[in-house]
Amino acid sequence: MATDSWINETLYADWGQRFLVKRELARVRSAFQDIVLFESFSHGRVMVLDGVIQITERDEFVYQEMLTHVPLVAHGAAANVLIIGAGDGGVLRRVLQHRGVKRAVMVEIDGEVIRLAKQFLPKIGGDAWNDPRAEVIVGDGIDYVKRAPDAAFDVIIVDSTDPIGVGEVLFTDEFYANSARILTARGLVVNQCGVPFMQAGELRETSARRAKFFPHVTAYVAAVPTYVGGFMTLGWAAKDASLTQASVDTIHARADASGILGTTRYWTPDIHVGAFNLPPYIAGHLPMSAAGDHA
Amino acid sequence: MATDSWINETLYADWGQRFLVKRELARVRSAFQDIVLFESFSHGRVMVLDGVIQITERDEFVYQEMLTHVPLVAHGAAANVLIIGAGDGGVLRRVLQHRGVKRAVMVEIDGEVIRLAKQFLPKIGGDAWNDPRAEVIVGDGIDYVKRAPDAAFDVIIVDSTDPIGVGEVLFTDEFYANSARILTARGLVVNQCGVPFMQAGELRETSARRAKFFPHVTAYVAAVPTYVGGFMTLGWAAKDASLTQASVDTIHARADASGILGTTRYWTPDIHVGAFNLPPYIAGHLPMSAAGDHA
Repeated sequence: MATDSWINETLYADWGQRFLVKRELARVRSAFQDIVLFESFSHGRVMVLDGVIQITERDEFVYQEMLTHVPLVAHGAAANVLIIGAGDGGVLRRVLQHRGVKRAVMVEIDGEVIRLAKQFLPKIGGDAWNDPRAEVIVGDGIDYVKRAPDAAFDVIIVDSTDPIGVGEVLFTDEFYANSARILTARGLVVNQCGVPFMQAGELRETSARRAKFFPHVTAYVAAVPTYVGGFMTLGWAAKDASLTQASVDTIHARADASGILGTTRYWTPDIHVGAFNLPPYIAGHLPMSAAGDHA
Repeated sequence: MATDSWINETLYADWGQRFLVKRELARVRSAFQDIVLFESFSHGRVMVLDGVIQITERDEFVYQEMLTHVPLVAHGAAANVLIIGAGDGGVLRRVLQHRGVKRAVMVEIDGEVIRLAKQFLPKIGGDAWNDPRAEVIVGDGIDYVKRAPDAAFDVIIVDSTDPIGVGEVLFTDEFYANSARILTARGLVVNQCGVPFMQAGELRETSARRAKFFPHVTAYVAAVPTYVGGFMTLGWAAKDASLTQASVDTIHARADASGILGTTRYWTPDIHVGAFNLPPYIAGHLPMSAAGDHA
């Protein structure tokens, strides 16, 4: 890649975004994927895995805040959190903002992603890498959930690539069965589920799979600037259907107690509650009972 | 443009979307702008003005529903509606879905946009072009509002290009002063205000201008797939601050009475109400009083 050339995202064959590249920072073929890091003119530094934009310095706050704060505040008393993927460290940093979190285990399969994120995207993880509550494991998430003890976690956050390639096992029956087993009675798991305007099958199929193992399956939305194509959805699978019923006032009070209130640029208590109201074009891809909640 | 070539949006110099082109349908230099229509592989037919994507067949419903149904249902009894721009006919069609609308005047400056939309995007306007309540004028919106009588309209919808080029006059003091004059006491005007993650100045500057002539200025959001870069904002300027305070139940009842309930794929009463809850990164660009509503 030459200086000042364009990089085209290759997620879709016939549409996508492109960035003018100021400078390439790294280009690595890891054991799992092609990793490219570059400095853009428009979005700060950008990480690309197998041709798909994963994170940019400028808009990472949207995705990280919504993927982290929504499940943690909805739970209300999460002490033990499991993060799968999220090698850039941004979810880990947001999880550790919550005062009540005693332990955050992060399992990322690709050590090269962690190494490159620490080197080139140090602000995204910040001090989280050195927090005594953090346990960072380079390993396979599917193996980790298989071996973890029952009821060990309150929240599982899956920040994976799309369910193709290395992320595929994180959307299987086996993964969700073990997730249900290792979660507490109030526990829940959230997954990134793609942009349904372009990838509706991803939401539809993985939601149906979650519904086999969890009584309450739905999704919530976030408008992430560089996950182009309208709302992205975050899949939600919980044992307790009341977690999505909390009022704005309750969410506000919990966020205040946790220490995150006023630290966010996208998440607010109103946006938290509103994110579960799905446009019909998205709700129609959820299992019938879940879509019914939003009809 | 060759068959099967890519077309790059040129809205931003250093980032943007691109479409693989199946077939070019038209390429016209009108008196006002360059107009390109093409068939894409991913989004159906697409209209481009001066290099900027205006509308695609596949995602037009998001923008049109939110630009139309939110002001009309918030007003609750709009009989006379003025549409400025919107040459594709999609807003006109949505306005005329509302049973209570007696007259919809549409003023589009570029007759070529209307001609090409009727020829190549007939489903977007549908039967609206022939509705006896519709009055379609090829003319200048700024002149129209100057000459219209006082209190002639309940709602003004400005579906313009960005405030550069031909759309610029639709964001001036003169335009807003006349808009306030020709609106009824419960009247309001909505404007497309760009994607604030990329174009924050557009929201900030035009909101400040609206605040000179309207007591209640705010904005609401929609995640439009091909207005890439996260939420787009729709600017809101009203004489009556209560219009954004209606409950979900009230909005639902009004939508039911108007005939739009169940016809939408993005708009719902919940999404209507929630769209005024702005992420802090957007709210911070509104005039102080408006941003305070969402703090």
